[in-house]
Amino acid sequence: MERYAIFGDILYSEADMKVMERPSSYLIIRDGKVEGIEGERPRDMVVHDYEGMLIIPGLIDMHLHAPQYQFAGLYMDEELLDWLNSHTFPEEGKYSDLNYAEKAYHIFTQDLLRCESTRFSLFATIHSKSTLLLASMLEEAGFAGYVGKVNMDQNSPDYLCEDTEASIKSTVEVIEAMKSLKNIKPIITPRFIPSCSRELLTALSGISEEYDIPVQSHLDENLSEIEWVHSLIPESQSYADAYRLFGLIGRKKTIMAHVVWPTDEEIELLKSANVYVAHSPSSNSNLSSGIAPVRKMMEMGVNVTLATDVAGGSSLSMLRMMTHAIEVSKLYYRHIDQNFRPLSFNEVLYMATRKAGSFFGKVGSFEPGFDADLIVLDTSDIHTTVYDQLSLSERLELYAYRQAGRAVSAKFVKGKKIL
Amino acid sequence: MERYAIFGDILYSEADMKVMERPSSYLIIRDGKVEGIEGERPRDMVVHDYEGMLIIPGLIDMHLHAPQYQFAGLYMDEELLDWLNSHTFPEEGKYSDLNYAEKAYHIFTQDLLRCESTRFSLFATIHSKSTLLLASMLEEAGFAGYVGKVNMDQNSPDYLCEDTEASIKSTVEVIEAMKSLKNIKPIITPRFIPSCSRELLTALSGISEEYDIPVQSHLDENLSEIEWVHSLIPESQSYADAYRLFGLIGRKKTIMAHVVWPTDEEIELLKSANVYVAHSPSSNSNLSSGIAPVRKMMEMGVNVTLATDVAGGSSLSMLRMMTHAIEVSKLYYRHIDQNFRPLSFNEVLYMATRKAGSFFGKVGSFEPGFDADLIVLDTSDIHTTVYDQLSLSERLELYAYRQAGRAVSAKFVKGKKIL
Repeated sequence: MERYAIFGDILYSEADMKVMERPSSYLIIRDGKVEGIEGERPRDMVVHDYEGMLIIPGLIDMHLHAPQYQFAGLYMDEELLDWLNSHTFPEEGKYSDLNYAEKAYHIFTQDLLRCESTRFSLFATIHSKSTLLLASMLEEAGFAGYVGKVNMDQNSPDYLCEDTEASIKSTVEVIEAMKSLKNIKPIITPRFIPSCSRELLTALSGISEEYDIPVQSHLDENLSEIEWVHSLIPESQSYADAYRLFGLIGRKKTIMAHVVWPTDEEIELLKSANVYVAHSPSSNSNLSSGIAPVRKMMEMGVNVTLATDVAGGSSLSMLRMMTHAIEVSKLYYRHIDQNFRPLSFNEVLYMATRKAGSFFGKVGSFEPGFDADLIVLDTSDIHTTVYDQLSLSERLELYAYRQAGRAVSAKFVKGKKIL
Repeated sequence: MERYAIFGDILYSEADMKVMERPSSYLIIRDGKVEGIEGERPRDMVVHDYEGMLIIPGLIDMHLHAPQYQFAGLYMDEELLDWLNSHTFPEEGKYSDLNYAEKAYHIFTQDLLRCESTRFSLFATIHSKSTLLLASMLEEAGFAGYVGKVNMDQNSPDYLCEDTEASIKSTVEVIEAMKSLKNIKPIITPRFIPSCSRELLTALSGISEEYDIPVQSHLDENLSEIEWVHSLIPESQSYADAYRLFGLIGRKKTIMAHVVWPTDEEIELLKSANVYVAHSPSSNSNLSSGIAPVRKMMEMGVNVTLATDVAGGSSLSMLRMMTHAIEVSKLYYRHIDQNFRPLSFNEVLYMATRKAGSFFGKVGSFEPGFDADLIVLDTSDIHTTVYDQLSLSERLELYAYRQAGRAVSAKFVKGKKIL
C-alpha cells in the first residue's frame, strides 16, 4: 500500500486522555499506519478530501453477539437468564442452517460497515461452519477483530448444546481454519461458566495457551447468574475466581463483558490479571442488570472499555454507547455512590478508541505508528448558532448526542478504505 | 379542508394502553379530524400513499426550552443550578436581540419539523418580542401547542431578570397578542419558584384564572433546588405545596416538569389536582438529577407524560425519550425499588401520544373525532431476517431503538400536511 492523505478536522485521544485537535489537517497514511499529521497539503500523493468533516479513530466494540443482531431492539422484557431461554438461544439455534447464517450475517456485515466501529471482539455461535462463514465475510469486508466460536456443553437447550469432546475439537478446527485469514482472528469463547463443564473450561484454557489465543466471556452481569455460578463452582471465591481456577483469567489477554456486580476482590483480580472489561450500558439497562461501577474500576486500575452487546444492547452505535455510559454514570453517582464521579466525554472517547485499541496492538489513536483505523463523520445536518465557536471535541460530542447511529461517511481499517 | 386518506401501516394506542394495529389500511381524515380507518381503498378522494411505512399519532413533547436548542448535546458537566448559571441563562440572554432570536428560532423550527413531535408545550424566554416571533414561526410552520413567555423577577442575572410589574404586564401583552394565532396558544410560565417573587406568583395565578390559561413550571428536579425552595417558602409543606399556596397548582390545567424527588404527599397533591407530569429521562440523566418514580406516580393515579427538556435533554427525539424512559425505569427497578416494575413499550407509546394528547383535547389517537396529528416513519433502512414476522408495534419498537431521531417522512397536524 502506498502513501496517501486524508484531509479533514482531525481529533484523537492522547495517552493522558486529553484530546488532540488538528482542524483542517492532513492525516498521512503509509503502509496501513499513521505516519503523521500535516498542516500543509502534501504533494505527490492522493488526498481523500473530507473538508469540514470530523476524522476520528474508528470506535471499538469490545463485546457483541453477531447472531443476535436480527432482533436487536426487541424482546427486552425479561432479565438475563429468562431472556436467554426465551429469545436468544432459539435465535442462535437457527445458525445450524448455513443458508440462514448467510442471510443473517450478510445483513449484520452490511450494517457493521455503516456503523461507527472499525474493530471488535464478537461472539458467533457454537456452529463452526457458520462461525467460519462470518469470519470470512468480515475479512472480505475489510474489518479487523476477533470472532469467537462459542462453547456450550451443559445447561443449554438440546439444539444449542455440544458434546464436550466435539466442542473442544471444533474449537481447534476453527482456530486452524482461521489461520488463512489475515485480519480476523480466533478467540476462545466459553459462553459463560453455567454453559461449560469443568472439563470443557480446562480444555479451553489449554487451547488458549497452546495456540496463544485470547479469551472472552461474561462476568457478573446479573444477580441470579452470579448465584448460579456460585452453586456450580462452590469452591470459587467469586465468579471471576471461578474463571481463574480454570485458567481463563490470568493467563492470556482476556475480555470480560458486563462486570456489573463485582466484589472489591474481583476488581483486584481483574486489575492484577490485566483483564479488559467491556462495559455495556445499553444491555445492562435493557435487561435490568444494573449500572456497572465503572469509575471505581478505573480508579482501581482496571482496563475499562465499551461495548454494544447487541442484542442485550439495542444499537450497533458505539457513539451511542459512549453517551449512554456517561448517562448511567451520572445515575450511579446520584443514586448509588457519590464517591464516584460521572464519566466525561474525553474519558468515554478514550475508552472507545485508545484504551480498547490497546487490546489489539497500536490501535485507537493517530500518533505515528498506530494502525490507520478511522471513520469520517458528516456534521452538516447539525444546525446551531454556536457551531463555529465549538472545538472539534465539542462538535464530536454534539454529533454523538444528536446523530449517533447514522451511517458514517467513510471508514478505513489498517489504511484500507472499506466504506 | 376536504376529505382525504392516508395509506400505510397504521397503529395507535387505545384507552386501555393496548395498541390497535391496522396494517395496509386507509386513515380517513375529514376537516382536520380522524373520520375512521378503512380496509378498502376509498373512492373520490386523494390518497397519500405511504405503503410499507408506519403511520402513528404524532408524539407530544410536554416540556422543552426552545431557546436552549442551540446547545442541546453540550455543556452537561454540571448539575441544575450551576448549569443554569454557567450555560443556560447566558444563552437565554441572547434572545433580547431579535436578530439572534430569528436565526436561532428558525433553526429550531426547521429541526422541530423533521423530528417526531407534532405538538408540545414549550418555554421561550422572558423576552416578549422573541417569544411572539417564535409563536408566529411555529404557527406558520403549522404546529399546534403551547408557547410560554417565561417569568423571572428574582435570583436571576441582571440581563435575564424582569421588574415584577413589567413581568406581569408583558405576560398579559403576550397573551393578548397571541389571540391572533389559531393553533399556538399562550401558557403561564413562571420559570420556577426561586425565579419568582411571591407577588409575581400571585399575579400569574390571577392571570391564569382571568384568561383561562394553563400553567407550566418545574418541580422537584434536583435536591439542591428543593432545599432552596424550602428556604424561600418556609411555610410550604413541599415544593408542590408552594405552587399550590400561590394558586399555581389546583386551579387550571397544569404541567409540571421532572418530579424526580416527590414525597408521597406531593404525589397525592399532583393526583388530586390532575397535574400532568412531564417526565424527562434524558435531562434527568444528563444533569445527574436522578430517576423519577414514574411507575409509582402512575399507580397513584397521576398523569405521566414524556418530554425532551431540551437542553438539559440532549435530543429532540420523542421516540428516544420513550426508550430512555423504559431504560431508566429498569435501572430504578434494579437499584432503587423492586416494587415498581419497569415501563413497557405500549405504556411509553401511550404516554407520548394519548395521555399527553388529553392535555390538549381529543389528541393522540386515531379513534374517530381525534385531531389528525400524525407522523410517517420509513423503516426501510432496518434490515432483519425477522421483519416480516413482526407486529406493527414491534416494528415501531425496532425503529425507536435503532433509528429514533431521523427525519420523519411526513407530518400532519390537525389534518394539514406540514412536512
